[in-house]
Amino acid sequence: MATKPTLSNEQVTAAMNAMLAKGMEIPDEPVAMAIVDAGGELLAYRTMDNLRIFSRRHALRKAYTSAVMGQDSGAHAARLQEQGRGIADLGDPRFTHGQGGLVIMQDGVILGGIGVGGYPSGQRDEDLSRVGLNVINL
Amino acid sequence: MATKPTLSNEQVTAAMNAMLAKGMEIPDEPVAMAIVDAGGELLAYRTMDNLRIFSRRHALRKAYTSAVMGQDSGAHAARLQEQGRGIADLGDPRFTHGQGGLVIMQDGVILGGIGVGGYPSGQRDEDLSRVGLNVINL
Amino acid sequence: MATKPTLSNEQVTAAMNAMLAKGMEIPDEPVAMAIVDAGGELLAYRTMDNLRIFSRRHALRKAYTSAVMGQDSGAHAARLQEQGRGIADLGDPRFTHGQGGLVIMQDGVILGGIGVGGYPSGQRDEDLSRVGLNVINL
Amino acid sequence: MATKPTLSNEQVTAAMNAMLAKGMEIPDEPVAMAIVDAGGELLAYRTMDNLRIFSRRHALRKAYTSAVMGQDSGAHAARLQEQGRGIADLGDPRFTHGQGGLVIMQDGVILGGIGVGGYPSGQRDEDLSRVGLNVINL
Amino acid sequence: MATKPTLSNEQVTAAMNAMLAKGMEIPDEPVAMAIVDAGGELLAYRTMDNLRIFSRRHALRKAYTSAVMGQDSGAHAARLQEQGRGIADLGDPRFTHGQGGLVIMQDGVILGGIGVGGYPSGQRDEDLSRVGLNVINL
Amino acid sequence: MATKPTLSNEQVTAAMNAMLAKGMEIPDEPVAMAIVDAGGELLAYRTMDNLRIFSRRHALRKAYTSAVMGQDSGAHAARLQEQGRGIADLGDPRFTHGQGGLVIMQDGVILGGIGVGGYPSGQRDEDLSRVGLNVINL
Amino acid sequence: MATKPTLSNEQVTAAMNAMLAKGMEIPDEPVAMAIVDAGGELLAYRTMDNLRIFSRRHALRKAYTSAVMGQDSGAHAARLQEQGRGIADLGDPRFTHGQGGLVIMQDGVILGGIGVGGYPSGQRDEDLSRVGLNVINL
Amino acid sequence: MATKPTLSNEQVTAAMNAMLAKGMEIPDEPVAMAIVDAGGELLAYRTMDNLRIFSRRHALRKAYTSAVMGQDSGAHAARLQEQGRGIADLGDPRFTHGQGGLVIMQDGVILGGIGVGGYPSGQRDEDLSRVGLNVINL
Repeated sequence: MATKPTLSNEQVTAAMNAMLAKGMEIPDEPVAMAIVDAGGELLAYRTMDNLRIFSRRHALRKAYTSAVMGQDSGAHAARLQEQGRGIADLGDPRFTHGQGGLVIMQDGVILGGIGVGGYPSGQRDEDLSRVGLNVINL
Repeated sequence: MATKPTLSNEQVTAAMNAMLAKGMEIPDEPVAMAIVDAGGELLAYRTMDNLRIFSRRHALRKAYTSAVMGQDSGAHAARLQEQGRGIADLGDPRFTHGQGGLVIMQDGVILGGIGVGGYPSGQRDEDLSRVGLNVINL
Repeated sequence: MATKPTLSNEQVTAAMNAMLAKGMEIPDEPVAMAIVDAGGELLAYRTMDNLRIFSRRHALRKAYTSAVMGQDSGAHAARLQEQGRGIADLGDPRFTHGQGGLVIMQDGVILGGIGVGGYPSGQRDEDLSRVGLNVINL
Repeated sequence: MATKPTLSNEQVTAAMNAMLAKGMEIPDEPVAMAIVDAGGELLAYRTMDNLRIFSRRHALRKAYTSAVMGQDSGAHAARLQEQGRGIADLGDPRFTHGQGGLVIMQDGVILGGIGVGGYPSGQRDEDLSRVGLNVINL
Repeated sequence: MATKPTLSNEQVTAAMNAMLAKGMEIPDEPVAMAIVDAGGELLAYRTMDNLRIFSRRHALRKAYTSAVMGQDSGAHAARLQEQGRGIADLGDPRFTHGQGGLVIMQDGVILGGIGVGGYPSGQRDEDLSRVGLNVINL
Repeated sequence: MATKPTLSNEQVTAAMNAMLAKGMEIPDEPVAMAIVDAGGELLAYRTMDNLRIFSRRHALRKAYTSAVMGQDSGAHAARLQEQGRGIADLGDPRFTHGQGGLVIMQDGVILGGIGVGGYPSGQRDEDLSRVGLNVINL
Repeated sequence: MATKPTLSNEQVTAAMNAMLAKGMEIPDEPVAMAIVDAGGELLAYRTMDNLRIFSRRHALRKAYTSAVMGQDSGAHAARLQEQGRGIADLGDPRFTHGQGGLVIMQDGVILGGIGVGGYPSGQRDEDLSRVGLNVINL
Repeated sequence: MATKPTLSNEQVTAAMNAMLAKGMEIPDEPVAMAIVDAGGELLAYRTMDNLRIFSRRHALRKAYTSAVMGQDSGAHAARLQEQGRGIADLGDPRFTHGQGGLVIMQDGVILGGIGVGGYPSGQRDEDLSRVGLNVINL
């Protein structure tokens, strides 16, 4: 039987804890964070207090976009924009052009995606996602 | 237990009455008006006679956009346009780029949104929403 | 040109005011109330404080069901149940079997629907809808 | 009781017959045609043989757009484009930017919409819709 | 190249005219009527004045159900009920258990469906659909 | 300004940690767990390894049902069944009849919902939700 | 890195070929067949000529139900019926109560699902799915 | 009875086999391939291992777009772009601007569509679709 790599409970827990701890260092700048599996299905989610609903949903859409596209959501959006296309043209409301989602890959196999939403800049969202990606330690 | 501010019946009634009274001063220019809570869920709605269906729905979408985005719908759309994005890219058909929605906030906490649709200009829609916001008197 | 009867601003305002005043007599039993036009499109809506979201949405679904079915929502559900059918079989999530919606008709023409949700019994919801229907005074 | 103008069976039949007769003069250029009421709900529909599905659905979307927007679909799209907006930003997949839909109005009251789809140009689609509008003879 | 039978403009026109003429004999009992093709896509539709919206949509759902199921909608529902299933279990809101839809078949090939809605009994709806089916004259 | 009670980060974190720790005591019986706010919007989510997708989604639907209904999902379903209704009749695919969701209330105000899915019995799902509810310590 | 078993191209090809060859033995009884992965996402699909659309879609829904539920679709439906529930109560239109779907599992891990639709009995549908499952040869 | 050309089992099987064989020549560049009928309904589908989910769905959307539009998906998108429109404006999430879909036509009649997704360029996707179209040999 063929096998493929997959995320474990330990990796998901470690990544969420690291992101949440880092995010809580600045409680006045709340963020939401999500990890999805290779099928784009939710593995873990947390939001901090007092975050607008859009950003709370956005974290999930960034993780989903990264996993289903197999690309970081910001890099994907940049390529799309070069082609003169909008994200709405892709036919799935869960896709976003927002930076802040990272694909989790190993040896060319997609394992899932991480997404963060809420900071004033997409770069800072992505930085926090990377905190999670780093502890997954593929 | 933590608490957060919320809109009361009295505030919603006062805001709706003020907006409706103001709107009815010009019966030949019908408008619709809506107030939603922090979750974007409807609190109050009225439409005047003989308004196209799009505008009747638009009032609700403006209130929803303001509450879920935590920004006035017109200001939000202006920022989005600067980034070269369309509202359709945000993945929720209830979002609108139309001016005329105002977020209801207190001390950085989102309490809901007010939206008006129907006037020939979004600025006039927003002016009527502000009539409602002013009487909420946060 | 053919004409058909239609609800006026005055009727909608009078009906909503009468229902809201009656409902506010018991503030500890919050309800939501809605009026829709012949197409099932929203004309007016209000909810009282501290009502579960289901009931807030239910008022709208009852008004919609009554207008689109051309029957009071409770009477319609009773007939459906006699036939061994469920409301889900009708293919529209806005339909409900809940009592509390009344059709607004004149001379066999459907003008719209009124719906109330929130009381412990559907009969009490319907009674409050009837307060609104009575002041429409067809 | 207030009244408002409405389309009659006779008008709808006459408009559909006129459009179909005109369209059938060129059987090799099939079109679809639709009439909706003030609520955007279907009154009448016909398609000729061998028309792509998109155009068959497009006729209905043009009629719907005209009724719900209270403007001819082509004129509406032109205004929208001046504002730098796309039709997708309006949050309803039944809206189209396609020319070929006409609003049916009388004394500022919207009675419905007519839409035609299938010709190589939107102008020709609109011309056929106008054949229908003319026989409604408001 | 393989071929399969298909409905022609002439058949659709003749069927609709026959059903409409028959229906108009009793103008106080309005009905709606629809014909769809083998893919369940609309070919022709008409509604008479003053019919509730549910029935106007129901005609279309009956025609769709008959074509996609390859069975008359009433017979299909009877079989389903014997199995203790509801139509909602089939996962498509366009399906209905309502009698009044007829499949159009020739030599075991499905060509489309006809549906009528509005009469007090499903049997009478089906009788009017049969008027249409008879003139298609397969 | 009126206020209402709300869940805090600390409560959500404590509840999720307690449920996850308890669930991980039996790694061979994976479960998913979710907490939503008063609007039914996600606050926190985790799933253990190797759980069928249905149960992973079910935890979220149980939490949503409890918050939006203002009742524990199992108790709500029992009442519904007494009335001869199915959950599908309520018009929202996020509702479930599954036991395992608990409403979070204080002084009659709904703060949110907790849901667990995955165990062979709904009672055990509910027991784990109660582990979370207990540490919220209202 | 953790790994989990997965279906390979070779297995999918072999299963589809075996099912298609078997199905084509009786060309007058057309069927459709589908294989989905662990996430319920399509891997392979085929339909034979002249099958009603419902059955063509049903094969996919059976495969999806089996993978997402982690149970054969017929066995799942039987258990659900014992509990007095309908499949519509599960909130996902892709679920079906139809027999004919088989889950693909290995050592308690779900790899995907196989579904067949079109035969007069669900048992025969399931028998053909099993032809595919057998050649996957876990 | 009128007839129209239609795809046969033999054609579909031959086209899929040819495309799959060609695609498998480069196993490290996985693709998905789909064939739909004139109604846009699925006839056959295959994906190779280790392809991102977006591309797996994209093959289907390209085939659908080609059949429903009656044009190759790339050529259609080019024309749309000339008009300053986006694919999202067409109101159907199954439409795509992606090159790689080909319409199957004979004598001006649409028989269906073929779509391929996954290669780095849309041109290569279209080349593989053409391998399938060529063996259909109209």
